[in-house]
Amino acid sequence: MPHPSSSAHPPLRVAVLGCGVVGTEVVRRLVTEADELAARVGAPLELVGVAVRDVDAERDPVVDRALLTGDADALVDKADVVVELIGGTEPARTLLLRAIEHGASVVTANKALLAQDGPTLYAAADAAGVDLYFEAAVAGAIPIVRPVRESLAGDTVRRVLGIVNGTTNYVLDRMATDGLDLDAAVAEAQALGYAEADPTADVEGYDAAAKAAILASLAFHTRVSIDDVDRTGITGVTADDVAWAARTGHVVKLLAIAERGADGDGVLVRVHPALVPSEHPLAGVRGAFNAVFVEAEAAGELMFYGRGAGGAPTSSAVLGDLVQVARHRVLGGKGPVESSHADLRVLDPGDARTRCQLRLEVADRPGVLARVATELAAQDVSIEAVRQTPPTDPATPGADRVATLVITTHTATERALRATVEAVTGLDVVHRVVSVLPVL
Amino acid sequence: MPHPSSSAHPPLRVAVLGCGVVGTEVVRRLVTEADELAARVGAPLELVGVAVRDVDAERDPVVDRALLTGDADALVDKADVVVELIGGTEPARTLLLRAIEHGASVVTANKALLAQDGPTLYAAADAAGVDLYFEAAVAGAIPIVRPVRESLAGDTVRRVLGIVNGTTNYVLDRMATDGLDLDAAVAEAQALGYAEADPTADVEGYDAAAKAAILASLAFHTRVSIDDVDRTGITGVTADDVAWAARTGHVVKLLAIAERGADGDGVLVRVHPALVPSEHPLAGVRGAFNAVFVEAEAAGELMFYGRGAGGAPTSSAVLGDLVQVARHRVLGGKGPVESSHADLRVLDPGDARTRCQLRLEVADRPGVLARVATELAAQDVSIEAVRQTPPTDPATPGADRVATLVITTHTATERALRATVEAVTGLDVVHRVVSVLPVL
Repeated sequence: MPHPSSSAHPPLRVAVLGCGVVGTEVVRRLVTEADELAARVGAPLELVGVAVRDVDAERDPVVDRALLTGDADALVDKADVVVELIGGTEPARTLLLRAIEHGASVVTANKALLAQDGPTLYAAADAAGVDLYFEAAVAGAIPIVRPVRESLAGDTVRRVLGIVNGTTNYVLDRMATDGLDLDAAVAEAQALGYAEADPTADVEGYDAAAKAAILASLAFHTRVSIDDVDRTGITGVTADDVAWAARTGHVVKLLAIAERGADGDGVLVRVHPALVPSEHPLAGVRGAFNAVFVEAEAAGELMFYGRGAGGAPTSSAVLGDLVQVARHRVLGGKGPVESSHADLRVLDPGDARTRCQLRLEVADRPGVLARVATELAAQDVSIEAVRQTPPTDPATPGADRVATLVITTHTATERALRATVEAVTGLDVVHRVVSVLPVL
Repeated sequence: MPHPSSSAHPPLRVAVLGCGVVGTEVVRRLVTEADELAARVGAPLELVGVAVRDVDAERDPVVDRALLTGDADALVDKADVVVELIGGTEPARTLLLRAIEHGASVVTANKALLAQDGPTLYAAADAAGVDLYFEAAVAGAIPIVRPVRESLAGDTVRRVLGIVNGTTNYVLDRMATDGLDLDAAVAEAQALGYAEADPTADVEGYDAAAKAAILASLAFHTRVSIDDVDRTGITGVTADDVAWAARTGHVVKLLAIAERGADGDGVLVRVHPALVPSEHPLAGVRGAFNAVFVEAEAAGELMFYGRGAGGAPTSSAVLGDLVQVARHRVLGGKGPVESSHADLRVLDPGDARTRCQLRLEVADRPGVLARVATELAAQDVSIEAVRQTPPTDPATPGADRVATLVITTHTATERALRATVEAVTGLDVVHRVVSVLPVL
């Protein structure tokens, strides 16, 4: 039953830009849940148009063809609230700025744009006195932007760490469960629609890096762009790495990590594959699910878990934002302004501190471990555990037999670990540094 | 560094009512984080007083004695924002209404009051055009109120389910890990400060029921009071129940469950101990931690996890709210109004649907299982699994030997399950119904 006040306030005009999987779900809920949404907002939400590239393309019948338009500019100009679901930098950026300048509030799921040029948009929205909401840009349906932006506004966040890309999580899962190599797992993800035809944004970690930049900006009240993120994707992860991880009680996960530096006045933001101990809650995050840990001074450790992508889950986040900004139009007021008052500097990735697992192929000779250990000690990297496999016969007859040495270090700086790897690589007893993976 | 605008806006006067564990932590952060909070709000937060019952009691030195007052009324009258941390119904209720009538925004952690009389407070805040925020009232530091109230505002929540009382969770944990009986585990929790001298509110499930009522009201846009909650505490849970749970691959947890009825137009809200399968994420929630699952139509399954109580975690939630309502005073506008537009009726607890584990002591005679199974079938309750232990000799010589029969049912209504238990109890071959526990 509509709320009494819904008849008192004129309808709010809503424009949707883009009509892909998420756009279609948003339109569906605007149509099918119209009464409920009107009750929650205090006014009806009138869908005034859906901007698309191709008005003649085949679409879900829930999308009224009369609402389709190729003229996004004209649509934006007549809306009270603009929902941007085009993705990418342009024309999304120009359209959002146009909407803001016209006094419309905006909701976007565009992580690429926000991670690249968020500050321009935040400043424009602030100057125009309108809302800019973007819960759907990070971790799909999981409410993570709002808690970090609002619930923890009175606390001090130390670290945000999580699995924020479902595609790579699915791929790594498949490598672990069925021993697939990366290419086969990616091909399977593509066949199932979990990965794009061009999987670069996911597998190279750009998508996760964009989300990490957005979360870091919010958590630390500082401007962090995707270019500030130290990024390593999963393309270097082999089936062998995943199998070795299991053998040492770990799973390989692509992590996004944003944290304060040791001195507290800088931030470190990175994305890389890491070994997660099997008993850690993140190890159990399967398939397309996402999970984010937030560690704050007073609140302690918080975890948020849910579906990180997909039309329906993402539309939930978009509609939550839409109800919120629409309520502000009805009741007055506006949401939080993005603040970068803390203005922390982005630290050199070399300052990041982490444990690490090195896997080396070494000559089967006495004293090899001592030689390797000496190089670690020289870089002030201490050893937590060593495991050596029985040697196997070499491919070339007459050559040394080869053993595998797996070294887990204590926490050290990324800089020291890199120097260690370089020094170890130079040893004549080390045939090959097979892999170097951070350990959570 | 303070935000430029913080000097432009006059300080906001903040009154804190109550100075226990949480109150002291809130005062501490207001004092030590003053610059950071001013930057986030856009104006300094000036602590104008702390109302206490006993101004002469010993207190943490962070609380300036000059700010202590026994006259809460006078303090409320001079505040822009009132933070209520007294707890209980009175004088908290009268003071909050007084604050609201004076045009102050209010932040409270008072679950008992909100679960009893929330609608009166919501309506008063709405009429006065001020904010009423209460993130700390449910699950301590975990942002759950804001996500349900705001992030999911465009979605349809089907069920909220979780562990929302850390004291009982600690007690059940101790019963499981060391085989303690309830009294011993409660005594230990009291000695460690996890349980009150009078543990009734926790062990009888009142605290969890209050939180369930608040979550149900928000999730279903309906007025649910603590009196609407079907409540069973943990006082009936024995060491034997906990040991049997482990034997069948479960742990006993006190769950709060709020869900839509089968037809979708009613709500069911209950608190009871339940058997949670060991592999379920809730089974791993230990000690004083809380975890809440939210199942929504579009978003799917979401989980929120963190510290459910304690001074620092709760103060994080209080300060997040305080920053939010203070920002509204500086920037204009206000937060969401509680809405009960859906006005769903609260269904009879007998309509709740659940699986169930029955543990019976039965005579060791052929045909016993058939007799029991017939009674279940008569109530339309079907059996998922049966396990029977070897019989043991009776206490009284000459009497029947006794076997234990553990029956897990498929999902049935609470009504049918109750009738089943009654029917089974009446059988001459059943010596005793030892326990009846719902299974998640």
